[in-house]
Amino acid sequence: MYRSHNCGELNANHINKEVTLAGWVQKSRDKGFMIWVDLRDRYGITQLIFDESRTEKSVFELAKTLGREFVVQVKGTVIERESKNNNIPTGEIEILVSELTILNAAILPPFTIEDETDGGEDIRMKYRYLDIRRNPVKNALLFRHNVAMHVRNYLSNQGFCEIETPYLIKSTPEGARDFVVPSRMNEGQFYALPQSPQTFKQLLMVGGMDKYFQIVKCFRDEDLRADRQPEFTQIDCEMAFVEQEDILNVFEGLTRHLLKEIKGIEVDKFPRITYDYAMKTYGNDKPDIRFDMKFGELNEVAQHKDFPVFNSAELVVGIAAPNCASYTRKEIDALIDWVKRPQVGASGMVYVKCEADGTYKSSVDKFYDQDDLAKWAEITGAKAGDMIFILSGKADKTRTQLSALRMELATRLGLRNPSEFAPLWVVDFPLLEFDEESNRYHAMHHPFTSPKPEDFELLETNPGKVRANAYDMVLNGNEIGGGSIRIHDKNLQARMFNLLGFTPEEAENQFGFLMNAFQYGAPPHGGLAFGLDRLVAILGGQETIRDFIAFPKNNSGRDVMIDAPSVIDDKQLEELHIKLDITK
Amino acid sequence: MYRSHNCGELNANHINKEVTLAGWVQKSRDKGFMIWVDLRDRYGITQLIFDESRTEKSVFELAKTLGREFVVQVKGTVIERESKNNNIPTGEIEILVSELTILNAAILPPFTIEDETDGGEDIRMKYRYLDIRRNPVKNALLFRHNVAMHVRNYLSNQGFCEIETPYLIKSTPEGARDFVVPSRMNEGQFYALPQSPQTFKQLLMVGGMDKYFQIVKCFRDEDLRADRQPEFTQIDCEMAFVEQEDILNVFEGLTRHLLKEIKGIEVDKFPRITYDYAMKTYGNDKPDIRFDMKFGELNEVAQHKDFPVFNSAELVVGIAAPNCASYTRKEIDALIDWVKRPQVGASGMVYVKCEADGTYKSSVDKFYDQDDLAKWAEITGAKAGDMIFILSGKADKTRTQLSALRMELATRLGLRNPSEFAPLWVVDFPLLEFDEESNRYHAMHHPFTSPKPEDFELLETNPGKVRANAYDMVLNGNEIGGGSIRIHDKNLQARMFNLLGFTPEEAENQFGFLMNAFQYGAPPHGGLAFGLDRLVAILGGQETIRDFIAFPKNNSGRDVMIDAPSVIDDKQLEELHIKLDITK
Repeated sequence: MYRSHNCGELNANHINKEVTLAGWVQKSRDKGFMIWVDLRDRYGITQLIFDESRTEKSVFELAKTLGREFVVQVKGTVIERESKNNNIPTGEIEILVSELTILNAAILPPFTIEDETDGGEDIRMKYRYLDIRRNPVKNALLFRHNVAMHVRNYLSNQGFCEIETPYLIKSTPEGARDFVVPSRMNEGQFYALPQSPQTFKQLLMVGGMDKYFQIVKCFRDEDLRADRQPEFTQIDCEMAFVEQEDILNVFEGLTRHLLKEIKGIEVDKFPRITYDYAMKTYGNDKPDIRFDMKFGELNEVAQHKDFPVFNSAELVVGIAAPNCASYTRKEIDALIDWVKRPQVGASGMVYVKCEADGTYKSSVDKFYDQDDLAKWAEITGAKAGDMIFILSGKADKTRTQLSALRMELATRLGLRNPSEFAPLWVVDFPLLEFDEESNRYHAMHHPFTSPKPEDFELLETNPGKVRANAYDMVLNGNEIGGGSIRIHDKNLQARMFNLLGFTPEEAENQFGFLMNAFQYGAPPHGGLAFGLDRLVAILGGQETIRDFIAFPKNNSGRDVMIDAPSVIDDKQLEELHIKLDITK
Repeated sequence: MYRSHNCGELNANHINKEVTLAGWVQKSRDKGFMIWVDLRDRYGITQLIFDESRTEKSVFELAKTLGREFVVQVKGTVIERESKNNNIPTGEIEILVSELTILNAAILPPFTIEDETDGGEDIRMKYRYLDIRRNPVKNALLFRHNVAMHVRNYLSNQGFCEIETPYLIKSTPEGARDFVVPSRMNEGQFYALPQSPQTFKQLLMVGGMDKYFQIVKCFRDEDLRADRQPEFTQIDCEMAFVEQEDILNVFEGLTRHLLKEIKGIEVDKFPRITYDYAMKTYGNDKPDIRFDMKFGELNEVAQHKDFPVFNSAELVVGIAAPNCASYTRKEIDALIDWVKRPQVGASGMVYVKCEADGTYKSSVDKFYDQDDLAKWAEITGAKAGDMIFILSGKADKTRTQLSALRMELATRLGLRNPSEFAPLWVVDFPLLEFDEESNRYHAMHHPFTSPKPEDFELLETNPGKVRANAYDMVLNGNEIGGGSIRIHDKNLQARMFNLLGFTPEEAENQFGFLMNAFQYGAPPHGGLAFGLDRLVAILGGQETIRDFIAFPKNNSGRDVMIDAPSVIDDKQLEELHIKLDITK
């Protein structure tokens, strides 16, 4: 062992002790007759002192050569510091060094190894191994480990069994694009990397395993929106002989446990709202409920006056921004410009100031009187001092726009506190969504989701109205988990595939093994999956997942550190029975 | 919830309780006026009783329709059984059923769902979800989970941090064949699936993470010998600021912990033997030391007599088979035939019976007298009643042959007791091995393994003699883990690549990121990886890993259940910029 102690544990109790430390030179201050070095490792920083009058000359001279990020081993005595540093646990002591060994020299790092670095995202990713030396990244990785251990121990204690499902599986065209792997031993054939272990976990239920989980990598070959990764980690779970209620309770329990053990926060029973309610009330199926600003629908009170914009709209809907009545004309105009940006796409916005004296002042005063505006305030929950913002147009689009505004206002108003946690369940998702492009229904969740039994009869007559036993867990405006009760009946599964446009042959070819399994005694079952990357980031109080992943890829799916993907040699291609097909 | 209790927990304490159970029909006995059904779930079996005189007629009639593996839910009362079954925890009671719901019917399974099934390997794999219902497979998966949880908690408590490394990495020609993944977004380029996270864990050490582990899938596209899988699981570990001794101690501690917690077995400090000693003494670098039969080298005492076979041999070597002096001529001939099979390849075998009266009788009596044979007995450790078997020829080949015989004899003699555990370390592996085919040295472990500092000078002059700081943990004749101290110096790594036949450009192109990282202050580090599949199988007392893997692949790398790999459609190929290159 190169050390007797680490760099985070020595304090006044160790004074006069002989110790050996090893680590990196964080910084060095050379005062001529005295050299101080901050020695860093995973556990902290300990100050070393080399003193011309007390340190052997050869050691003192060697200490002068130390540069940033050199790896050294020192032996020395713990002594009391003259000027103590109360900000760090080792701040009372320093090490008077008697022996110094340079274990490895270092060239100058391309960015500073500090909590606030001067390195941009790109260079930090290229030298990720240096970035990981920085506290924010190091602590994010330790935090992730801690969360994962809590998840595993909690579920294991509840009788769940972690079972590894295969990574080399079969490609299916439903859902997102697969990454595929050419098979050398099976000419012309390909494995696919799993987008999730969905069918395998269902087969484990057919196999009687009853409570399954797995923390597992999944893969989607999609064009990467910001903060998405081609490989990501799920906490994947499934249970048999359960109803939706049981699943919600188990995983609400897990989430409450994590919040308590990791954040020290006790959370009440999670609110449960339906998908329809979420869309009407927040314009969004993953509402952030740390703050209010619920939608108020104003059609009844705002239409049939003389304002043609509202009269011609399918939906007139507003929110009350708290304490914003004092916004200046300039601030309001900036917000109107914000909603008119192509990313949001509103054509305009109406506002109503709710003055402190109980009167209203709006941008549509010539169409509406004070009584009208008072009704708007009532419906949107606006109080004196608030500002009502109103959008109108096609219902779906307008809700999406107002949802964007709601989030933006909350951000500007400081209502999205990352150390506050407001989880909820959104339930009763639609089973299907109609896709204009392919002119058919697609599964909103996946083709294995069970319709609600009371909606079975709508399956062929009004598929868009069928609700699913599907649910999402939402935390602070992010979907962190989602799942459903699954189909466990072969015939219902066949109806579902038919509805999704599969021919019986296609269904058999792609999912025959599952439908076959259902014939041998499949129990009722369901489950859910959490996105671990996102969950950890939110619990860690961050918006972006990247620092919670040791070696993330960039938006082109590249690992810029190792420079992957890369070309492979012709012999490999030949063995795999493939040729390149490059466009030129 | 479909049940108030599971099928393994009810006993006499629950008599008169109303319960709800759900599970599979294991079997049904219809006596006309009385029907007994064994209901099975993950937790056990509970007997149900339907009695014409006590059960409602409709329920009784429905019970008559139950077939094997039907999924049912029952409500009823716990009553005392007339004839108790002391073999199962629920054997004192049965459930007098009042309500019966068939949750899912089942067609007849293709093999019996019993501990000893009538299904062969192929059909069990095709219907793996049914195979998992059988206790041996189900228990193997639960056992694996238990081992993995113990590993994680032990290492985590020792300060190790589990960090997920990427699955989409870069192909390198060194080592086994890679599975590759064509990149859609990076035309003509490929990711590779990791054969191990080796370089990433080293970069984590450079990043200061200091104690890393991960239970992680790895991939090798090799022709599959029996009991190998193209995807397999490693317990992958790495530590910084440590020497070989520290690593051996930590992972010996882990293994001892597993043996104690999981098997209830306390093991002394593991023996440590060198690779050279292992090869000379057992003919094998992963000796099974549950039994003795050490090799005795007989050159000095058996050569220069009149037996030309021995005189012309590079090595004459024997083992004493305990209590085998009574073998008949027929038994001996069968053994001689066994070593002459092409799989072993000996050209003949000499034997010496050590009779109870202290005399010797051998197949070479005309060349050797009793004093000669007494020396052989002394060197091989043979006692009265033992039989010495002797092989001769080229040293390496002869050792391998005698090792095979040693294992075979131990198996026949019942010396390989699966509930006995004899771990050891084999250390001081050679750094390199010469490959005749490519006419160059290959890394015995991998190119990142550090030579022993005292052998540095031999690197260019006598590479075959250089020993590495490399070690294997061996358990009951299986290598269950292996690792090494790594190179952490850029120049030494460059020398190593040069020795392995890399041009500087190739080294830079493939491993430039690692050598670059070494310049920024790499600490001394090392680690090891355990094969989890094998470890679990051995701890579980089994020779084969397949039942400890939920969904294994066959020897052609196929998943016969889901039928993967499979063809993919032309659109997918096109998007991935590849074409098939089928030989016809």
